[in-house]
Amino acid sequence: MFEFTIHDRDPKSQARTGSFQTPHGIIETPCFMPCGTKGTVKSFMPHELKEMGCQIMLSNTYHLMLRPSSELVAKMGGLHKWIQWDRPILTDSGGFQVFSLGHMSKIKDEGVTFNSHINGSKYLLTPERAIKIQEELGADIIMAFDECAPADADERYTRGAMERTHQWFSRCIESKTRSDQALFPIIQGGTFPELRKASAAFLTSFDTPGIALGGVAVGEGKEEMWRAVETVMPFLPDGKPHYLMGVGDPADVVKAVMYGMDMFDCVLPTRLARHATFWDETGRRISMTRAAFIDDPAPLIASCTCACCKNFSRSYLRHLMIEREILGARLLSIHNLHFLLELMRQIRQAIKEDRLHTIYERFHSQSH
Amino acid sequence: MFEFTIHDRDPKSQARTGSFQTPHGIIETPCFMPCGTKGTVKSFMPHELKEMGCQIMLSNTYHLMLRPSSELVAKMGGLHKWIQWDRPILTDSGGFQVFSLGHMSKIKDEGVTFNSHINGSKYLLTPERAIKIQEELGADIIMAFDECAPADADERYTRGAMERTHQWFSRCIESKTRSDQALFPIIQGGTFPELRKASAAFLTSFDTPGIALGGVAVGEGKEEMWRAVETVMPFLPDGKPHYLMGVGDPADVVKAVMYGMDMFDCVLPTRLARHATFWDETGRRISMTRAAFIDDPAPLIASCTCACCKNFSRSYLRHLMIEREILGARLLSIHNLHFLLELMRQIRQAIKEDRLHTIYERFHSQSH
Repeated sequence: MFEFTIHDRDPKSQARTGSFQTPHGIIETPCFMPCGTKGTVKSFMPHELKEMGCQIMLSNTYHLMLRPSSELVAKMGGLHKWIQWDRPILTDSGGFQVFSLGHMSKIKDEGVTFNSHINGSKYLLTPERAIKIQEELGADIIMAFDECAPADADERYTRGAMERTHQWFSRCIESKTRSDQALFPIIQGGTFPELRKASAAFLTSFDTPGIALGGVAVGEGKEEMWRAVETVMPFLPDGKPHYLMGVGDPADVVKAVMYGMDMFDCVLPTRLARHATFWDETGRRISMTRAAFIDDPAPLIASCTCACCKNFSRSYLRHLMIEREILGARLLSIHNLHFLLELMRQIRQAIKEDRLHTIYERFHSQSH
Repeated sequence: MFEFTIHDRDPKSQARTGSFQTPHGIIETPCFMPCGTKGTVKSFMPHELKEMGCQIMLSNTYHLMLRPSSELVAKMGGLHKWIQWDRPILTDSGGFQVFSLGHMSKIKDEGVTFNSHINGSKYLLTPERAIKIQEELGADIIMAFDECAPADADERYTRGAMERTHQWFSRCIESKTRSDQALFPIIQGGTFPELRKASAAFLTSFDTPGIALGGVAVGEGKEEMWRAVETVMPFLPDGKPHYLMGVGDPADVVKAVMYGMDMFDCVLPTRLARHATFWDETGRRISMTRAAFIDDPAPLIASCTCACCKNFSRSYLRHLMIEREILGARLLSIHNLHFLLELMRQIRQAIKEDRLHTIYERFHSQSH
């Protein structure tokens, strides 16, 4: 269980294809994991995700602990059964959301107290509690409880958050009781290369089934993000899957794959869709409400094989978004998620055929 | 074209089964037509409606004339092509919405001026314009432009509205140019039996392919509604389909079928769903947010074969509705619309087998 097998390597970069074994099936990497934050990838039925080739979805400890609670999900037979998804699930630990969504968060060595963003009730999340909740939810891959320092934090603050993340990881390991869940640590260290190196060195000293890079794509800017990736990659064990958290922009995904990243998650495909935005061939974001689309009979992308592009015109889609119709958000979500899942398939195929650069050029031939 | 053939009759009521021929296929009656007000039955893709056995959908002149305009729809190849629905469509004339949604409506013999509820722009809708718009949209069945008096209007006002409706119907016939669209007149007359009789007598003197009863289910109360139905039914030509406008409550539909009604439309299935409400076995409205559903593993209805009940628990559905997730509105819409389409199938089968009373008893054995 949780074996990672590498199949092909790109001769011109660190990119590789692999397969990762989980209790609910094998994940082919590089892969994208859509976010089912509250136990649903917004607008999709589970069988629709499967038909689109989605191999694994992500769900969130923070949201589910507030409503309906992990105890309830456990009582209903666990997350897979409750949401009717029989493929792998990864749950985030709640660490990131506690800081981005929780009110009046107070960080101590024990853990974090915060007030729910829904109704203000007080909660305490500790490494032990984050593991307990994730064991109750029952995902295949669970994440260590970490402290994600703000992008603009100074070195002293960021070092403190990193050290706490390291101490908390040891406690996560100690409190873990289920052997059918893979626990991934999360490298922190913000925008400080020395901290990133220290965090990568410390966390890779544990023999974990995979490892994640966190605290990126949190507002630090693209250059800083790539510097963090560059800094930690040499430390990551080759034989384990590398998960770049929160990155889902197509151009970024392609670039990160070339750095040797294997797994990605992001709310972008469905969030952009709900905001009337779709990806064109080269991954640019296009607003559906453009006046030019009023009478445009073409699909979003002529060559796209998604259920949206095969059936509907830009003219109709624009109308649906202007009218804020549910079907509009559904159809653009289908397009955007299909786009990203199809990109991952193309990336895997290209690595196999030693032509990953052709995909890179498609997304990086012009400035974004 | 537009031939109505009666197949079976219920020996104990005026109910009958029939088939109505249209350019986009045959409609088996009694039938329910879901509302695709703005060119989409909220949350559904067209192929999903077909898979559920939906034979015909309704769309609205009023909404489509404001956005995106009938000229645009015509330019895009007509409503069927634009929304990707290849089965029959019925368009309402805009008469009802001008009064219920339009601001500062002024009624003259020529037509109605009103201000758009979206941006306040001024419009004029006349019988001729309502027909022109419906010809541009290209539905199979189009409706006469009528004046629907408020439920609490006095006899003098209601008579004036009725007489205008009659004059407007003659103008609708005169301005109609397409032969591939069936024009149905709409009987008005409010809560006044003598006016209802006069309207039925006048409008049935035209040889139309079908006839509708309007100005019901507009707030007049159930007793008044059934009195209007009872009053006009003897006037309606047996060999033409009878359309009861705006009625979709399951118990009401069963009762109306026994009066000899053949066609129904209503926003209820999808509107109730968006308001977290589903129909149980006997057509009662149940709120999905009930606390008892928190840990209820059962489907909405144990014997229901819809995609919602076959896959998801009340517990999960309650969670989706509490979180206002799109999937919640989708799944309850599927259940409610399936419920009504399945009811129509059961009604047609029961009429064939002389046991329509068994369905009536299911919905009327207890007070609603």
